[in-house]
Amino acid sequence: MIATIEETAAFTPKWGSDGLVTAVAVDAGSGAVLMVAHMNADALAATLATGEAHYWSRSRRTLWHKGATSGAIQRIIEIRVDCDQDCLLLIVEPAGPACHTGRANCFYRRLGTHGLELISEGPAT
Amino acid sequence: MIATIEETAAFTPKWGSDGLVTAVAVDAGSGAVLMVAHMNADALAATLATGEAHYWSRSRRTLWHKGATSGAIQRIIEIRVDCDQDCLLLIVEPAGPACHTGRANCFYRRLGTHGLELISEGPAT
Repeated sequence: MIATIEETAAFTPKWGSDGLVTAVAVDAGSGAVLMVAHMNADALAATLATGEAHYWSRSRRTLWHKGATSGAIQRIIEIRVDCDQDCLLLIVEPAGPACHTGRANCFYRRLGTHGLELISEGPAT
Repeated sequence: MIATIEETAAFTPKWGSDGLVTAVAVDAGSGAVLMVAHMNADALAATLATGEAHYWSRSRRTLWHKGATSGAIQRIIEIRVDCDQDCLLLIVEPAGPACHTGRANCFYRRLGTHGLELISEGPAT
């Protein structure tokens, strides 16, 4: 059964007990990981229907069309799924910064010997 | 308060109600996303102490030293954290395939018009 899920051509996302799968968005151009969010079935359906990334906002408890207000739409180039189908990899063309802080991606700090160090500078002005 | 979390140098992972954060492992060489897993505080502590990726296995409910049995250890090059500190990006040097199917990474299928299509061929023999 597990082997079936891993090798099948059938797309059967394994929704968690919260109805979500993890979604990792990657920049199609640079390959950089832009952000990690979540999708429910509605978000996935909206993403497939529109070709633009939709997520489920756990904090706001609402469907979230990424970029609808900021303009930083993520156009879907390809969607990949992992072995056990509980995680999606979205290869996207972003129309703007993925991070709400204004940075290109959310992973702008690395763990150093004295705490977090900035990799990217502050929000674009 | 939110701005503090986003801009601080203090590393304060935002553990979910299940005590976990999402961890995305990326190949330091190719930049490819290898796998997505989870860490609890013990897994993070073990990762920092050893320089090798440790996760929390949700299915087995146990600390999981990646590669301890398979040999596919993931040596940590850098750890990045996202804006709200509920997700870690592990930049690693993998000593073998990240996926238990034997593939280099877990995202070996893409969603096509007729279901999933293999990007990578089957397990190495």
